[in-house]
Amino acid sequence: MVQIASGNDVVTLINVFTVSPENQQKLIDMLVEATQKTMRHIPGFVSASFHKSADGTRVANYAQWRKAEDFEAMLRDPRAAEHMKPILEIAINDAHLYEVVESFTAEG
Amino acid sequence: MVQIASGNDVVTLINVFTVSPENQQKLIDMLVEATQKTMRHIPGFVSASFHKSADGTRVANYAQWRKAEDFEAMLRDPRAAEHMKPILEIAINDAHLYEVVESFTAEG
Repeated sequence: MVQIASGNDVVTLINVFTVSPENQQKLIDMLVEATQKTMRHIPGFVSASFHKSADGTRVANYAQWRKAEDFEAMLRDPRAAEHMKPILEIAINDAHLYEVVESFTAEG
Repeated sequence: MVQIASGNDVVTLINVFTVSPENQQKLIDMLVEATQKTMRHIPGFVSASFHKSADGTRVANYAQWRKAEDFEAMLRDPRAAEHMKPILEIAINDAHLYEVVESFTAEG
């Protein structure tokens, strides 16, 4: 189960992909395959959650890594680069590392 | 506690704000105030989690609403519009409604 909480011991990657609606499902399939085959086995991987926008133009990955260094080491991993190359041929991504500042629920 | 899971009974708003680093904290403060004073009290609000990027250029809101109609009703609420106006004077936002497609953790 994936949890969002301030003060949790992870760094958060939010990666929003802009894609044409006819490629949205293909992009999701590529990201899921990359995660299953490679990303989840890389040290420091905590979670990845894929989201598709109702308007068809975005796919978002909300991912958690143990430390920023783990994420950066993944970026240098040739297996990760091999997955990302065809993905970036059909989508533009906006990836940043984040820290959870504050979280609110309806209950309090 | 905020949870991400496919098949959960919410719609997800991911809103990524692009901001100049000197305004990042100010933007977070404005979003937190809008949530505490107004958003969390609007029917259908489930959660909002604010994230600041390590590079200073982004603030992301990962929010959950019960239904798309609840989110759309909030957009028409004059109190919400009053909060958003000064926010959009210091930031550009990219807001989309999403569905969680699939979620992976390191454990399985």
